[in-house]
Amino acid sequence: MQMPTPNAAVLSKKARIVERLQSVLPEDAVIHDPTETRAYECDALTAYKCPPLAAVLPASTEEVAAVLKICHEEGVPVVPRGSGTSLAGGALPTADSVILGVARLNAVLETDYDNRFIRVQTGRTNLSVTGAVEENDFFYAPDPSSQLACAIAGNIGMNSGGAHCLKYGVTTNNLLGVTMVLMDGTVVELGGAHLDAGGLDLLGVVCGSEGQLGVVTEATLRILRKPEGARPVLMGFDSNEVAGACVSDIIKAGVLPVAIEFMDRPCIEASEAFAHAGYPLCEALLIVEVEGSPAEIDEQLGLILQIARNHNPVELRESKSPEESAKIWLGRKSAFGAMGQINDYMCLDGTIPVSSLPLVLRRIGEMSKEYGLDVANVFHAGDGNMHPLILFDANKPGDLERCEALGADILKLCVEVGGCLTGEHGVGIEKRDLMTSQFTAEDIEAQLWVKDVFDPAWLLNPAKVFPLGATESRRAA
Amino acid sequence: MQMPTPNAAVLSKKARIVERLQSVLPEDAVIHDPTETRAYECDALTAYKCPPLAAVLPASTEEVAAVLKICHEEGVPVVPRGSGTSLAGGALPTADSVILGVARLNAVLETDYDNRFIRVQTGRTNLSVTGAVEENDFFYAPDPSSQLACAIAGNIGMNSGGAHCLKYGVTTNNLLGVTMVLMDGTVVELGGAHLDAGGLDLLGVVCGSEGQLGVVTEATLRILRKPEGARPVLMGFDSNEVAGACVSDIIKAGVLPVAIEFMDRPCIEASEAFAHAGYPLCEALLIVEVEGSPAEIDEQLGLILQIARNHNPVELRESKSPEESAKIWLGRKSAFGAMGQINDYMCLDGTIPVSSLPLVLRRIGEMSKEYGLDVANVFHAGDGNMHPLILFDANKPGDLERCEALGADILKLCVEVGGCLTGEHGVGIEKRDLMTSQFTAEDIEAQLWVKDVFDPAWLLNPAKVFPLGATESRRAA
Repeated sequence: MQMPTPNAAVLSKKARIVERLQSVLPEDAVIHDPTETRAYECDALTAYKCPPLAAVLPASTEEVAAVLKICHEEGVPVVPRGSGTSLAGGALPTADSVILGVARLNAVLETDYDNRFIRVQTGRTNLSVTGAVEENDFFYAPDPSSQLACAIAGNIGMNSGGAHCLKYGVTTNNLLGVTMVLMDGTVVELGGAHLDAGGLDLLGVVCGSEGQLGVVTEATLRILRKPEGARPVLMGFDSNEVAGACVSDIIKAGVLPVAIEFMDRPCIEASEAFAHAGYPLCEALLIVEVEGSPAEIDEQLGLILQIARNHNPVELRESKSPEESAKIWLGRKSAFGAMGQINDYMCLDGTIPVSSLPLVLRRIGEMSKEYGLDVANVFHAGDGNMHPLILFDANKPGDLERCEALGADILKLCVEVGGCLTGEHGVGIEKRDLMTSQFTAEDIEAQLWVKDVFDPAWLLNPAKVFPLGATESRRAA
Repeated sequence: MQMPTPNAAVLSKKARIVERLQSVLPEDAVIHDPTETRAYECDALTAYKCPPLAAVLPASTEEVAAVLKICHEEGVPVVPRGSGTSLAGGALPTADSVILGVARLNAVLETDYDNRFIRVQTGRTNLSVTGAVEENDFFYAPDPSSQLACAIAGNIGMNSGGAHCLKYGVTTNNLLGVTMVLMDGTVVELGGAHLDAGGLDLLGVVCGSEGQLGVVTEATLRILRKPEGARPVLMGFDSNEVAGACVSDIIKAGVLPVAIEFMDRPCIEASEAFAHAGYPLCEALLIVEVEGSPAEIDEQLGLILQIARNHNPVELRESKSPEESAKIWLGRKSAFGAMGQINDYMCLDGTIPVSSLPLVLRRIGEMSKEYGLDVANVFHAGDGNMHPLILFDANKPGDLERCEALGADILKLCVEVGGCLTGEHGVGIEKRDLMTSQFTAEDIEAQLWVKDVFDPAWLLNPAKVFPLGATESRRAA
C-alpha cells in the first residue's frame, strides 16, 4: 500500500503534535520519522497497512495520561498497541492517528504469593509473567499461541485464551484489576486484588474491549500453583465427525482436561512434514491433556481412553515420558508455522457449542469445495474455539477476496449454530461488518452507548469493532 | 415505618398506571391494594421499609417489556425484585415505584448436557436450577446460603457467591448469557451459550449491576458434572489469628479446596447451642472441604492436614462417612439461624486479601470492644469473603445506629487492606455512601456514565448503589 503524500496543513499539525508529545516523553519515545513509523504500519493481519502519524512509547501510567491528554486536546485518534500480534487488525493505524505502544511498560510491580496475584505493567509479555513467578512454582494460566511475544495489554484488549483455557478460563477469568487511562487523561482503577466489585463491574466490560474504552497500563493477574504433572494422549480418527463426537462425549462425561486440541488431515500433513512428530496420517487428530497428581492423571486418562475407544480410534497413544509428551505437542505447536511454510493462510477465530463440532466441520468441508480453497482445521476443541486456516495464494488476483468471503461465511455459520464471531482474536477491522450477523441493531446500540460515554469524541482505536455504518454519525460528530 | 397518606394527584396517577399495567398483564399479576403491596415493602434488610405504588408479576420477557415501556412513558421508577432475600436493601421500594417481581418467570427453557448449560427464566430459585439437572448428575455451582429461596435474577444482580465458590467461582464465572429488557422496553441479548463475546462484553457489566441497567428475564447458566465425592475436615484453633494463618498457608500451598469456612467463638457457641453438631468450644473453627475421586480426596486432604498440624490445632477431625460430613456442615449451615435465635444481628459482606485475615480479625475484635457490640465472624475464608455478624438489640434506642457505624468502619477496614465493600450481597442502599471510600470521584463517574446511557431517566432501582450526593443532579434531571 502507498503512503498518501502529506499536504502542508497535515505537516504543520503533525509538527505541533510531535512537539507536544516530545515535551512529555523522552526523545527516543516519540517516533515520527516516516521511515521509522512504518514499523507500526500493521499488526499480524498484514493484508492491511497504513503508517501512523507518529508512535509513542511511554513507560509509566503518568506518561500515558500525558500523551492521551494531548491527543484529546488536539483531536488526534490514538491506536493502542500491545506487541502487534493481533490477527484481526486490532492495532492497525489510521494515517491521522498516534500509535501508543506499551513495549516500555514492562515492569513487575508486585508479586504476592499469599494472595496469589501478580501486578505488572501491561506491556510485559504473557510468557514473562509466568517467568516472574515460576521459580516459586506458580504460573499465569492463559496461554495464547503467541505467548512468547504478545503483551498482557493485548491479552486484556482481546480477552485472549489459549490451549489450556478449557480448564483455567480465558483472560477475563484471570484478571483481577486494572489501572486504565481514559482518553482525556483521567486515571481510573477498576477491580483490585479482591473478589467482586462494588457498583458496576467495569473491569468485565473493559476486558475484551479492544482499546475502545481506555488504555490499560497496569494489571493485577491471578497466578496459580503449577500442577504436579501433566500427561497428553494422542488420538487418531477416521473422520472429523467421529473426532468431533469424541470431544463432545468427553465434555458430556464431565471430565475436565486442561486441553483438547484438534487437527484435521491438511493440518496433520503439513505439520508432520515440517516437525516430524510421528503423527499418524489419518483424518483427524486429538491431543487431550490432563493435569494433577499421578493418581488423578491415571484416573482421568482412564475415563478419556475408554470414551475414545468407543469411537474406534485408528491411533491411541498415551505419553509414557516427558519426551513423548513433548513429541505429542510438537506437531500441534508447529501447526501454524508449518502451514505458513507451504501456503498463505488466513486464520479464523470463531466459537461454537461443542456439540456442533461435527456439523460445523462437515459444512466447512462443503464450503471449502464451493469456494475452491482448502481449509485446514486446528483448534481448541474442548471449549469450541475454532481456528480454521483458509489457504490461499496472495500473489493470485482475487484469491484474498475469495478467502475473505469464505471466512465470513464460516464465521456466520458459527453464529448460526449458536456460537460467536470471535473466541480470542477480537473483532478488529476483520470482523466489524460481521457484527450485524451476531447482534441486532438494539444489541449493537447498547454497546455503542458504552463506547460513547468513555470516548465521546470517538478518538480511541478508530474504525474498529463496530460496523462502520452504525458508527458513521458518531465519528463525524 | 408509617405509610405516607397519598394525595389526590398521586391517587389519580396511580389509578392510571395501574389501569395501564392491567391492560398488559393478567388481573392477578398487578398488585395495587395497599394491604397487599405491603408484602413488598422490604427485603431481608428489614430495618428499612416502604410500600411501593404497585407490584407486578409478569410471566414472560414480553410482559416485562410491556411493563417497562409503560413505566418509562409514565416516568415511574421500577424496582426489580428477585425473591427479596437481599441483605443490602437491593429490592427496597420507593413510594412512587413499581416493584417488578420475577416470581412467575420460573420456567426451565432448555437443558443441554452436550454443551453443559441450562437456560432458565430468572425467577427460578437457585436450588431448583440444580434440581432440574441433578438426575443427570449435574449441578449449578454458585450456592448462596439463601439458595433455597433466592432467585437467579437476584444472583445475577448481586453477582452472588457461596461456600463452594472458592473452587467454582461466583455467578459471573458461571453465567454465559442473558436476555435483558431495557427501561424503554427494548429487549437485548447479551452473551450466549458460547465462549467470549463480540465487541464489548456487556454481560460482565450487567452481572452485579443490581438492577441498574435493565431487567434480566432469561439466563443461560453453565452446569457442571457432580464430583465423585467430597469430604470435609474440621479444624479447631486457639486463636483467630492462627486459624487465619492456616487459611493463608493452604491457599499459598496451591491446594484448591471447594470450601474453606471460618467460624469464631461467638459463632461456634451460638451454633453449637442451636444445632449440637459436636463442635469443640475453641476460639476458631475451619471447615475445609475437598472434592474428587477417593484418591484425589486423600491426596489433597493429606496436604491440608499436614499444613493444619503446623498450626497446633486443638481439634482435627476428618470425616469418615457421609453422616460425619453432614454433622461437620450442620453447625456452619445453622450459624445464621442460630445467631438470629439469640440476637438481632446485621450481616456484613466485605472481601479482603486472604493474607490480611489475621490482621482484619484482630482489628474487628478491637473495634467490637470500642463500640461495645459483639461481633461473630462466620465467612468464606478461602476467597476472603467475610460475613461479620454484628449483634445488637433492635429494641434498645441507639443500638441500630451504633451497629451501622461499626459496620461501616469494618467495611472501610476491608477496603483499606486492599479489599472490597461487598463480596456477594451488593451495595444496595446499605453501602451506597461507603462507595466513596473505595472509589475515587473519577472511578464513580465512570460507573455513572454507564448507568446514564442504559437508563437516562434514572428510573431503574432508584437511590441505590451510588452515593446519593453523586447522583442528585442526574436524578433531578
